[in-house]
Amino acid sequence: MYGLASRSLSKNKALSTSFRYFGQSSARLQNVGGVAMPTCDFVPDKYEGISYEKALEIRKSHLAPGLLTFYKKPLMVNQGHKQWLYDIEGRRYLDQFAGIVTVGVGHCHPKVEDAVFKQMRKLWHTTNIYLHSPIHEYAEKLVSKLPDPLKVCVFVNSGTEANELAMNMMRLYTGNHDIICLRNSYHGTGSATLGVLSQSHWKYQLPSAMGYHPTSNPDVYRGAWGGSNCRDSPVQCVDRPCACKPGECAASDAYLGQLQEIFDYNVPKKIAGFMAEPIQGVGGSVQYPTTYMKEAYKKVREHGGLCLSDEVQTGFGRLGSHFWGFEAMGVVPDIVTVAKSVANGFPMGAVITTPEIAAVMAQAVTFNTYGGNPMACSAASTVLDVIEEEKLQANCEKVGTHYLNELSKLRDQFDIVGDVRGKGLMIGVEMVDDKISKTPLAADRMLDIWERTKDYGVLFGKGGRFGNVFRIQPPMCMTKEDTDFAVAVLKQSIIDHQNDQA
Amino acid sequence: MYGLASRSLSKNKALSTSFRYFGQSSARLQNVGGVAMPTCDFVPDKYEGISYEKALEIRKSHLAPGLLTFYKKPLMVNQGHKQWLYDIEGRRYLDQFAGIVTVGVGHCHPKVEDAVFKQMRKLWHTTNIYLHSPIHEYAEKLVSKLPDPLKVCVFVNSGTEANELAMNMMRLYTGNHDIICLRNSYHGTGSATLGVLSQSHWKYQLPSAMGYHPTSNPDVYRGAWGGSNCRDSPVQCVDRPCACKPGECAASDAYLGQLQEIFDYNVPKKIAGFMAEPIQGVGGSVQYPTTYMKEAYKKVREHGGLCLSDEVQTGFGRLGSHFWGFEAMGVVPDIVTVAKSVANGFPMGAVITTPEIAAVMAQAVTFNTYGGNPMACSAASTVLDVIEEEKLQANCEKVGTHYLNELSKLRDQFDIVGDVRGKGLMIGVEMVDDKISKTPLAADRMLDIWERTKDYGVLFGKGGRFGNVFRIQPPMCMTKEDTDFAVAVLKQSIIDHQNDQA
Repeated sequence: MYGLASRSLSKNKALSTSFRYFGQSSARLQNVGGVAMPTCDFVPDKYEGISYEKALEIRKSHLAPGLLTFYKKPLMVNQGHKQWLYDIEGRRYLDQFAGIVTVGVGHCHPKVEDAVFKQMRKLWHTTNIYLHSPIHEYAEKLVSKLPDPLKVCVFVNSGTEANELAMNMMRLYTGNHDIICLRNSYHGTGSATLGVLSQSHWKYQLPSAMGYHPTSNPDVYRGAWGGSNCRDSPVQCVDRPCACKPGECAASDAYLGQLQEIFDYNVPKKIAGFMAEPIQGVGGSVQYPTTYMKEAYKKVREHGGLCLSDEVQTGFGRLGSHFWGFEAMGVVPDIVTVAKSVANGFPMGAVITTPEIAAVMAQAVTFNTYGGNPMACSAASTVLDVIEEEKLQANCEKVGTHYLNELSKLRDQFDIVGDVRGKGLMIGVEMVDDKISKTPLAADRMLDIWERTKDYGVLFGKGGRFGNVFRIQPPMCMTKEDTDFAVAVLKQSIIDHQNDQA
Repeated sequence: MYGLASRSLSKNKALSTSFRYFGQSSARLQNVGGVAMPTCDFVPDKYEGISYEKALEIRKSHLAPGLLTFYKKPLMVNQGHKQWLYDIEGRRYLDQFAGIVTVGVGHCHPKVEDAVFKQMRKLWHTTNIYLHSPIHEYAEKLVSKLPDPLKVCVFVNSGTEANELAMNMMRLYTGNHDIICLRNSYHGTGSATLGVLSQSHWKYQLPSAMGYHPTSNPDVYRGAWGGSNCRDSPVQCVDRPCACKPGECAASDAYLGQLQEIFDYNVPKKIAGFMAEPIQGVGGSVQYPTTYMKEAYKKVREHGGLCLSDEVQTGFGRLGSHFWGFEAMGVVPDIVTVAKSVANGFPMGAVITTPEIAAVMAQAVTFNTYGGNPMACSAASTVLDVIEEEKLQANCEKVGTHYLNELSKLRDQFDIVGDVRGKGLMIGVEMVDDKISKTPLAADRMLDIWERTKDYGVLFGKGGRFGNVFRIQPPMCMTKEDTDFAVAVLKQSIIDHQNDQA
């Protein structure tokens, strides 16, 4: 009824799929550009919910219009299994976005499910004025993954709630007010987090929160400075050759100069803090010069500020080389925030900080009804076990590096693939008109390619300030075979698109 | 190891419990003041988690100090069943606070569990840029419980997130900035919601959000005005006889005069809106004069403002006479927010508003990662079914009215029971030094009584601006027999306390 079948086939001049049906465990697997969709013997349940048309009708009548679907023909998902999603007709898709970097250890992971079901049969929720074992057991396990002195947790329900709270803690601890963030960053959509959220298409016509100071984004691809040796990634920028000697980074110095301007012009002598994602998520997997963060932290601390690492997307092993994004940058933050994949999709967020900073919470009463509930903690606790048992961090490094190298071939082959970047399974593919101008690929062209990838059976994310970045942050259990299929699909979709444009 | 056994028995001069052990289905039931704890044939699992001492140690080392436990000897909960909680030693407690008004249909409700497990075996989470049936099915079901034109939902993860978003919507829709709220209100702990949160012990030393204007709380017991006929409750205030003729309410007029002063002195001609809980939850089940809200809404709308009803605690039938708190007040708000019991403890919140107001969301991009996830929606959907099938709203009215009437006898009997108020199963018992002064009962005395009720096997909530209100908002499946036990326990605890004081 929809998907491939519904596309105007006449428009699809170069449709190279061997079979239209790529669901279930069918032997007639989707084959794109000579690469077959990897097999999967899981058989999804028959869909039993409301019809596709009914869902669209309800969405229009009863869900707010902010809830975008993007795809021309939106996907309706019925079931998930590992790195696969099944639509309501049983078609199988390779999930490369994991519900926005949230289903970290794979859809419906049996071990996580068993633990949560066991907990839910016992106790879903109670107030934290009582004790219950899961919150304590998880707190101990979570802080064991963090270096000293990051040993105290506050549990909340989302990244927004975690960052809102963390910003209050920064201000209370320092007694200062001003917070510096990076342009193109995303930290949530509460009132304070909207202040630091530095992408204008997320901004409503509302007075901005006070005391937020975004500095130039040290984006080595699209920013004013950057070279071919800046990134902590198997794939470097190719458009600006690097003349730096070992141990130097002119791009980093230039961006730090921009940060210095904030101190020189915009804030009082002392600030409350600085917050950044190790790699920008919503912003399109943007990476900074490798030395930037270390120097930025130094500057911030010289001005009395705390440093917050927003690990909502980068945490839990996704980057491969390290469990946390900040570790890859050689820094130890004062506050870490997590959410999304922390409990594999079960709503949860957390702030982890030092005992001294956490102590500010005692200055008044604060409480979070669901925060640290038994269900969330048992899910999150088992997620940590699974990451270790299944060596998912190592898998991210191995599979992600292969993925990045394969994607870099597309960049070399197609002028509209401007940049390929990332680390582990946190990858961005930035699309442009051409490599010289770097003009973001027009929205309709981006969407056309995106729709084709979906119709070929691969679900990429989409983001970046101009909506022109394919975001690849799949379940961490993804295989090399999967990446080959995903790359083939992206390649074929670009070819189809270009043929249509021709 | 703790609980009753650990209390200094020598201090407990009038200990009237027949048996110290009141766990499981033992025939040797707790008997307090001649009333036996109702039987329950559920047998809890053997506790398998960390020790009580270990939990306390982790709490001290790895959880922020804001996470209070209140009880001198905190309870450690292992399991829940309907209106009962079991501690790690198998002792059974009558849960009168439901995890802060959150476990609405009872702990571990089998039907809700079945629905959620079924969904979780299929799909935990995916991004809402795709469709999935649970969010649509639930949106349609939820709006069917609301009057026109409240037909559009936005799903989030908590009451805080719901109110933060709703406040933005008020401002975007009206183009105005100022928001009026009630003193003693609680709407969450984000940056904007902390602005309207009007209880100083929740306020940190942070600049308050801009544009919030709390008006005098129309509290007919503790406020400047109030009579013996003001409340929509089976139990009226007794200390200020009412001289109003039918159709008049001098107290309401006086509080509306206070609201008028906000318009006269504090805000520009046009405001963004007004937000209030139908009955204040955290504030201690405070009720307003019956006619207040209708007139307040009128005034607000005359000034271009939208009216928000925060139904986080009052919604879903708890008040007995009506499904929503606003219905009991004869008003239709422009925005309704829900959370807590919406999904029986599964983290979820929602904003429900009109299509016109919801349309403002399209002015930019907004997204909530977990908001409206399949698990939460299937839990919430089944909660609505259970409320209907088990006639829980009617049960709240029947049991709550009996409860209130029984509690009012304690007020008549004890000078330190200042006020009993509420509606359905949303009840407050305000403790004072004496009925004339109304001085809030000192914290240590309140805590002493509270500790005793816990040791006798009943878990009351505690709240109010002065921490002197027993909050009673139990699972809605509670029985009359349970109320008799709870009242006997509260009575005996007061007697014991007074004997100890003597």
